[in-house]
Amino acid sequence: MDAHPQRHPIVDIRLTPVLISDPPLLNVQGVHQPYTPRLVVEVVTDSGVTGVGETYGDTKYLELARPYADSLLAARHELSDLNGLFTLMNDLPVDDARVDHSVDVGGLRGVQSADKLRLSVVSAFEVACLDALGKTLGVPVHTLLGGKVRDSVEYSAYLFYRWAEHPGGAGEKDDWGAAVDPEGIVAQARRFVREYGFGSFKLKGGVFPPEQEVAAIRALAEAFPGHPLRLDPNGGWSAATSLRVAAELADVLEYLEDPASGTRAMAEVSAGTDVPLATNMCVTTFGEIREAFLGDAVQVVLSDHHYWGGLRNTRELAAICRTFGVGLSMHSNTHMGISLAAMTHVAATVPNLDYACDSHYPWQSEDVVVDRPVFRDGRLAVSDAPGLGVALDRDALDRLHRRWLADDGTLRDRDDAAAMRLAPGHEEWRTPTLPRW
Amino acid sequence: MDAHPQRHPIVDIRLTPVLISDPPLLNVQGVHQPYTPRLVVEVVTDSGVTGVGETYGDTKYLELARPYADSLLAARHELSDLNGLFTLMNDLPVDDARVDHSVDVGGLRGVQSADKLRLSVVSAFEVACLDALGKTLGVPVHTLLGGKVRDSVEYSAYLFYRWAEHPGGAGEKDDWGAAVDPEGIVAQARRFVREYGFGSFKLKGGVFPPEQEVAAIRALAEAFPGHPLRLDPNGGWSAATSLRVAAELADVLEYLEDPASGTRAMAEVSAGTDVPLATNMCVTTFGEIREAFLGDAVQVVLSDHHYWGGLRNTRELAAICRTFGVGLSMHSNTHMGISLAAMTHVAATVPNLDYACDSHYPWQSEDVVVDRPVFRDGRLAVSDAPGLGVALDRDALDRLHRRWLADDGTLRDRDDAAAMRLAPGHEEWRTPTLPRW
Repeated sequence: MDAHPQRHPIVDIRLTPVLISDPPLLNVQGVHQPYTPRLVVEVVTDSGVTGVGETYGDTKYLELARPYADSLLAARHELSDLNGLFTLMNDLPVDDARVDHSVDVGGLRGVQSADKLRLSVVSAFEVACLDALGKTLGVPVHTLLGGKVRDSVEYSAYLFYRWAEHPGGAGEKDDWGAAVDPEGIVAQARRFVREYGFGSFKLKGGVFPPEQEVAAIRALAEAFPGHPLRLDPNGGWSAATSLRVAAELADVLEYLEDPASGTRAMAEVSAGTDVPLATNMCVTTFGEIREAFLGDAVQVVLSDHHYWGGLRNTRELAAICRTFGVGLSMHSNTHMGISLAAMTHVAATVPNLDYACDSHYPWQSEDVVVDRPVFRDGRLAVSDAPGLGVALDRDALDRLHRRWLADDGTLRDRDDAAAMRLAPGHEEWRTPTLPRW
Repeated sequence: MDAHPQRHPIVDIRLTPVLISDPPLLNVQGVHQPYTPRLVVEVVTDSGVTGVGETYGDTKYLELARPYADSLLAARHELSDLNGLFTLMNDLPVDDARVDHSVDVGGLRGVQSADKLRLSVVSAFEVACLDALGKTLGVPVHTLLGGKVRDSVEYSAYLFYRWAEHPGGAGEKDDWGAAVDPEGIVAQARRFVREYGFGSFKLKGGVFPPEQEVAAIRALAEAFPGHPLRLDPNGGWSAATSLRVAAELADVLEYLEDPASGTRAMAEVSAGTDVPLATNMCVTTFGEIREAFLGDAVQVVLSDHHYWGGLRNTRELAAICRTFGVGLSMHSNTHMGISLAAMTHVAATVPNLDYACDSHYPWQSEDVVVDRPVFRDGRLAVSDAPGLGVALDRDALDRLHRRWLADDGTLRDRDDAAAMRLAPGHEEWRTPTLPRW
């Protein structure tokens, strides 16, 4: 028996921050800026295999990713030592100033903590290691997660109130036009169905007074009878408002996502309605699970492998949800094809994936992968190619990195309120205190 | 990029029931029989790689293992499709007559259910697949679980009240002699320390009235001051008795294992003592976790990869315990070196392994592996060889299988009460109703 199994130390790591185009999508905090920072992580083994991962690209993530990469290289970290990725990260200090807020920028990513920041960075490295490991061993990433239980993964259409263009005409243009009322949302949904075949719809709410968003959901229900609908005001409502909306939309909602802010308010809403409550705000870390599950505050957790520390942690979250009878689906923030591939691989392996996953991806006109994935019938096929099954477009990576280099700093940290203030009539905009209604 | 990754269909499966020698170890139900049934599972891939696993060998496990093996072969199941092992098993019927008891034979393996029976069978196949997959890919099993976080795993000495020999002199002899009082237990512990270097001690209780077992623990505390001690009466006590013992031994017990039977009684005990309660009886399935954790009935779960459905499920259990602040260690039943290797691999990868693991292994004089593992300083080194790092001793396997073939059926299903009735003065023995004291 060979007592010297394969070893593949990581000998090089490339960290490439990029700015990718983002449309003027509205949410409770404001509006997406013209460009969003993302970080592309490449790990290279001594045999020359490269794996790729992606995570948030704001400064605080970059600040931690660089010393982390240095630690991995100094240790000649073994590619397959995925558990060790966490051990090594836990030794790194995190600047308190980066996490001493109750919620992060925009409040859309849930609680802030040093551990969550660490996990958000580890996730990109874990995905990159899985990609490289899959290529090295000749197996797809889903095999490294125990094997796919489905051949394709369903996604839902992610509908946004939006402006036709960014304030001052900044950024890239698109032909989607404005959507600021029920008719605009239904038109957007129709185009999503036409182009990608989505069968379920999520509307990002918290933008207009609740009655207007209720009207939009009603319009969707009329236009797409029987199709699953979701509404997500990002914690923008009081418990009382949440209960009123839940009662009004009980017959058509698949679930209501983060109607109120915080586990206590969510538990209050949950106790007063039969509409399932989903969250990607009050349960975004393992430490928040106990209180939320014991208090029956949420019925669906929307996992996000960036927050939770990678694909294997996402599977552990799935096991916890399964054990406690809590539903599971998948959250998304602005991301590229690397993360979409990672999401699809892990989603393919989770038996209790109870709902179609969210993805911003259809809104992203720019990517760093060759052969961008295409939604068909609202689904993505699960790649059986070794690793993630994506290849880097180095020209695109270089171009988007140069955009990041050229930025004067105003776009390197996502701030939905900053862009809001540039719009006519919104110059006095401040990040709203929640609940807003 | 290679779009056709490695595939390794399983083309042959060998199921070999064996009877292995077992000493006359006493517990709340009776005494171990001279031989215990185990099942050895071998999976063979189309490239000729063999992987090996082990589980319970009682008839009900064999009855399910055979059709399961047929299903896997009919499907040419892909070796790496570990998630699919569960999907396929869930399609198989389980005879209700095999699981319609509130607890199984001996009551020592916790609740019975069709799912648990399925998982107990899957576990041996999962371990065999991991072994073969590791050999195929050139990596140890711990790498397939994300990598070891420690190079050796600590085990505790598993002390038993016992007779010098089996009733009527049946079975194999050993030179340990009887241990039926504090002096005998301390002598047994001293020999374990001398031969294997164990640093912590667990006494299987529920055999004698509680005050005698309290005296044995006190004797151990005097003989080995400062060393972790545990007592496990297998649910033999009432809540009131449990609380009395907990109070008497609070200063020396690391934890008290299953003092009372069932989650409700355990919760009652837990509420009345600061001594941590451990279990391998009231939480042996994912379905039992919610009630036990919400009711704070247990502070330590003793995992058993056989019950829980393999090494990857054991890691999920570990994640759940970590998330809910519940401790984790490892349970053992009579087993051979295959399962010991599997236990050691998974234990090596779990960050929150909070206590030394249990293992009956030092009591087993027979095995089917070449180069039996040796405890040094109470620890086992984690193998870095591909797969589990064990090789089958085919002569031994054949010999132990012929013993199983030759048996008239009396030993093919473990029954600690049956052997008890053979001992002088115990002819009227019946499996005790719990609580016994």
